[in-house]
Amino acid sequence: MGRPRTPLLDRRRIGAAALRLADEQGTLTIPALARSLGVAPSALYHHVSGRDEIISLMREELVLATGGDKDWQQPWEQGLEDWARTYLSAFAAHPGAVPLLATAPLGEPFMHTMYEKVAELLVTGGFATDQVLPVITALESFVLGSALDLVAPSVMLSAVARDSAPHLSAALDHTPADTSRAAQAFDIGLRALLTGFRDLLDH
Amino acid sequence: MGRPRTPLLDRRRIGAAALRLADEQGTLTIPALARSLGVAPSALYHHVSGRDEIISLMREELVLATGGDKDWQQPWEQGLEDWARTYLSAFAAHPGAVPLLATAPLGEPFMHTMYEKVAELLVTGGFATDQVLPVITALESFVLGSALDLVAPSVMLSAVARDSAPHLSAALDHTPADTSRAAQAFDIGLRALLTGFRDLLDH
Repeated sequence: MGRPRTPLLDRRRIGAAALRLADEQGTLTIPALARSLGVAPSALYHHVSGRDEIISLMREELVLATGGDKDWQQPWEQGLEDWARTYLSAFAAHPGAVPLLATAPLGEPFMHTMYEKVAELLVTGGFATDQVLPVITALESFVLGSALDLVAPSVMLSAVARDSAPHLSAALDHTPADTSRAAQAFDIGLRALLTGFRDLLDH
Repeated sequence: MGRPRTPLLDRRRIGAAALRLADEQGTLTIPALARSLGVAPSALYHHVSGRDEIISLMREELVLATGGDKDWQQPWEQGLEDWARTYLSAFAAHPGAVPLLATAPLGEPFMHTMYEKVAELLVTGGFATDQVLPVITALESFVLGSALDLVAPSVMLSAVARDSAPHLSAALDHTPADTSRAAQAFDIGLRALLTGFRDLLDH
């Protein structure tokens, strides 16, 4: 057919380039993406309908790059914890792109394979059918929010006025000022969610 | 001084107008904001340094508009639940603005008063000083992620293939297709977090 074996442009290449660009520049425009791929903007539109679809491709790239080799045969608590940590790590690897990516992706078809695995994990673990999606969604919301927190500037936390906010000041004195603050919050929240989900099972 | 009693432009008016504009249009540009306020873009720059500060003002407007009359004398579990629900409702009232607003706001000075209240609630409830900020942050991450989920399009959920995703399909059959899906996930997640935080206290 005269088509090159390795096409200059395909959807995965577009997703990967967009992820790299957004990560480096914290923003994404079609002209900049076209430039980074060495093509004209019009060439991009042969493959994607627009910016929303590019962001969807970035998310797909993120999921594909990290979710492939997970052990789904573990007990549900371990499996759910692994999923949440891998998911957060994927975001953390592209901090500049997080604000673009951190919208709820539940509806995107390429996520279905992953959700199916998590759903099976929960059903096997004993969750009722009507609990499965709320549990997945709640955990995913926590991961997305934590990803946003992970990339948030923490610089102004030190500006808390001791007189007007004594409890907050004391809490800050006992909290690390670097990125381990976000990691600590994620650990406590994830642990709490798993404990709470376990409690759902037991009642 | 010849200054009008009610200035044409002040930071609260800018924040409120930006919130309204972003909510209606799902996006925010300085020219559009200036237009909606009936001023020149240059007039805006007398009050704000740029887009980031405007988004911060939007968040401040959101917090000021909803957080004033809370009962902080309740037991910590009830107080924390109220805080989380009010916070989510504030986002839900401005769905179009959520993607702009849902970045972690922990560092912004106007949030300190609110955080101080929550910190006092937790300390009074018996939490250790070094647990206070992780608990607040984890809960806030969950609320931010849930706000994103609340405004996410759920339309493609129906496209799940029954053959390749039987567990997910069954779960979807038992999950409401409208916005009560997000509300249900929020309820289960909030309940789980509170149960898990209680467990922190008991150990």
